[in-house]
Amino acid sequence: MAASASISKTIYFGAFIHSISLSELEICDKGAIGVDSNGVIKFVQRDIELARVYDEHADWKDAEIVKVGGNGFFFPGFIDTHTHASQHANTGLFGKTTLLSWLSTYTYPMESSLSDLPKATTVYNNFVSRTLSHGTTTCAYYGTIHVPSTNLLADICLARGQRALVGRVCMNTDLSPEYYRDVSVEAATKDSKASIDYIRSIDPQGEIVLPIVTPRFAPSCTTECLTALGALAHEEKTHIQTHVSENKGEIDLVASMFPDSSSYTDVYETTGLLTSKTILAHAVHLTADEIALVKKRDAKIAHCPASNTAITSGCAPIRHFLDAGLTVGLGTDVSGGFSPSILEEVRQAIWTSRFVAMNTSDASKLSTEEALYLATRGGAAVVGLEKKVGGFEVGMEFDAQMIKLGDVKQGGDQEGVFEEGPVDIFGFESGDEKVQKWVYAGDDRNTVAVWVRGRLVHKTGRFTIA
Amino acid sequence: MAASASISKTIYFGAFIHSISLSELEICDKGAIGVDSNGVIKFVQRDIELARVYDEHADWKDAEIVKVGGNGFFFPGFIDTHTHASQHANTGLFGKTTLLSWLSTYTYPMESSLSDLPKATTVYNNFVSRTLSHGTTTCAYYGTIHVPSTNLLADICLARGQRALVGRVCMNTDLSPEYYRDVSVEAATKDSKASIDYIRSIDPQGEIVLPIVTPRFAPSCTTECLTALGALAHEEKTHIQTHVSENKGEIDLVASMFPDSSSYTDVYETTGLLTSKTILAHAVHLTADEIALVKKRDAKIAHCPASNTAITSGCAPIRHFLDAGLTVGLGTDVSGGFSPSILEEVRQAIWTSRFVAMNTSDASKLSTEEALYLATRGGAAVVGLEKKVGGFEVGMEFDAQMIKLGDVKQGGDQEGVFEEGPVDIFGFESGDEKVQKWVYAGDDRNTVAVWVRGRLVHKTGRFTIA
Repeated sequence: MAASASISKTIYFGAFIHSISLSELEICDKGAIGVDSNGVIKFVQRDIELARVYDEHADWKDAEIVKVGGNGFFFPGFIDTHTHASQHANTGLFGKTTLLSWLSTYTYPMESSLSDLPKATTVYNNFVSRTLSHGTTTCAYYGTIHVPSTNLLADICLARGQRALVGRVCMNTDLSPEYYRDVSVEAATKDSKASIDYIRSIDPQGEIVLPIVTPRFAPSCTTECLTALGALAHEEKTHIQTHVSENKGEIDLVASMFPDSSSYTDVYETTGLLTSKTILAHAVHLTADEIALVKKRDAKIAHCPASNTAITSGCAPIRHFLDAGLTVGLGTDVSGGFSPSILEEVRQAIWTSRFVAMNTSDASKLSTEEALYLATRGGAAVVGLEKKVGGFEVGMEFDAQMIKLGDVKQGGDQEGVFEEGPVDIFGFESGDEKVQKWVYAGDDRNTVAVWVRGRLVHKTGRFTIA
Repeated sequence: MAASASISKTIYFGAFIHSISLSELEICDKGAIGVDSNGVIKFVQRDIELARVYDEHADWKDAEIVKVGGNGFFFPGFIDTHTHASQHANTGLFGKTTLLSWLSTYTYPMESSLSDLPKATTVYNNFVSRTLSHGTTTCAYYGTIHVPSTNLLADICLARGQRALVGRVCMNTDLSPEYYRDVSVEAATKDSKASIDYIRSIDPQGEIVLPIVTPRFAPSCTTECLTALGALAHEEKTHIQTHVSENKGEIDLVASMFPDSSSYTDVYETTGLLTSKTILAHAVHLTADEIALVKKRDAKIAHCPASNTAITSGCAPIRHFLDAGLTVGLGTDVSGGFSPSILEEVRQAIWTSRFVAMNTSDASKLSTEEALYLATRGGAAVVGLEKKVGGFEVGMEFDAQMIKLGDVKQGGDQEGVFEEGPVDIFGFESGDEKVQKWVYAGDDRNTVAVWVRGRLVHKTGRFTIA
């Protein structure tokens, strides 16, 4: 299995780029990253020739060498802090719906059909391949309410070597259709526990796959169910993921269903679900009190701009969240979101911040650097892996993508087939401008290889090691 | 040359999809489109076997057959009603700038450098290839102020067989840097006339390439210059393209520069530039009076949502324009826009309408069908070709793309290389759902072949004729 395959120690040589703060990218034109046989980064050298690396690290002479040249560079793997693997087959289908109608029209029928394991195999294999192909090395997944197919998703992530938090979805109110809900609080708890136990049995150290308690969202669970899941997460010391304050109709619904709570966020607070290991997806319309409460509990935010736009939920004020000290990552939220690509979410986060700016001021804009931070370091902090992944630092594990951009020939392309992908590098571009061209025009064709813990988990025909 | 190559008469057989009204797509699962040796559609048959086509059209037995099967279909070519070929090398570079700072930082230096013909050859060849690869069969291009390189752009469009309106850019105020502006009104007029004459010399019937008078935008021209260009367009009976009301700072600038005009649009009205052959790009912040004036003159709107978002210009209220009876198409506005793809603009037009809806009501949303109409029939009307292209109708010329979507294997993809592009078809999808998946997830990999006037002008390795 990719996750446990033994690996040679390896020196990754060439340009590398990563976030070193929210507002700053390091662009190193010629670097060397030494990764040991456990996949851990042992050294990072800047502005160095390969021969000189050996002078300082004599015991690395037998290491494998993976070089990137030309317009290529190594970049940390992306982190998707919120997505529904079970909705992948619906990607692109939302029409003019908004959240609550979209759930009943598209989502519940699709998710419920994944009780069929061969169908779940098709959908989950494809989605894990898709997210890897876009450079996503860690993903927080919603499965369905079914234990076997949720466990299957965990098996696939482990086999493919993609870091994952995998959650069986819990929902026991009549917001969900009768054909697709937990029959009781006891069933919700027991099935969730069964999936947690299974995931821990296949990856006892939690090196690749972790369980995560997953109440769908407040309106789909009774107070008793939410409280039982809060207790389960506490007992089992798991992460928690759910949705909050995505859509105004949904917020009204929560207010009517939970009249004793002072806010949507307070529903999670009072049921023990608001912890430092909680991922709150969307958070579009949080009040100032809710922002303060999220901050107090150190709960995390999964910003899903593509989805918020596609189903017209609203614009989350991320610049404001960052100023308030919240921890924020990006989520594709397939299939509310229309793409499995975190690079697309980087763009969408920037566009959403532009729309916020149109109604407020330019201070609301996210920069390219900030959005890339959210996609890597920010996301790592959201899933509790900030010490392991998100940047190229000694002691971190090597989760990375090799990016290659396309070279324009003198005279220009007169054939018109662009297999190298959508980015055109003409030769005048600075390192910073190459990053911008990648961010605003790039796609999965530019991600030619992907590693998790130093294991190669995806490559295209354009990947070469020298 | 592609544009004048002689062709065999051809029957395009398989599914076809096109707009038949603003809100309605026709999805024909099994059709036949007969195209004669001039590239003109002679018949369109629905729900028919190929053999039966010959029963009705006996003289087509010797026609070539181009079949599309599986998840493929024919779709009209896209129309890009506003883009700057000369800015292509800057695609993706805008940072946190807004319109006026972006012009001086990125745009003027790049455009001015295209006086160098080898550089212009590289940039223009590449951009025409890029737009063709995204299925754009007609494009309204801005060149630069240079006559030779603008004429070169026209040569390339004619050689590649892409319909184009090609404009030499006029600008004579000190808003433009001294190194890049027309030295006088006389020079602006004379050079524009020279480019018009050249374009008419290489394509006397205007079958592929047309000249277009191109005052950059009001602030870059004096009243005298605008008036002279209005007269030139009138004398030469050409189209006109310019920008209007893109950004609030720009609108203030126009008000201060043209104190006698009642509005930005009125500047064009009073200088003879507001005609039924005028393409007004952006039109983000038009007043009610300006909308009425545009309508009265039957001037056309090029909606450029990606650009408006990227450089934070604002959200053009397109649903409102359509209700007011304006004629609207889409423009990529490279490099304010970050993509040469009209399919991306279809998405961006929908996202922008969602943002308008968030501040107004759901009535402002554009549907998938409406955005595809703007990309084809709407754009055709903007460039004055609505009787020739934009749909599959007898008497129209065959400007089309063959779309192929990716098939998901049973068991799902376990390799993770997606050369068939980003769209996953699982097998349950209706024709309408296939269109949605293409619109929201598709890219140039799905456009496997492109025809203009029945001439094949682009194909990828996935194109097969049977």
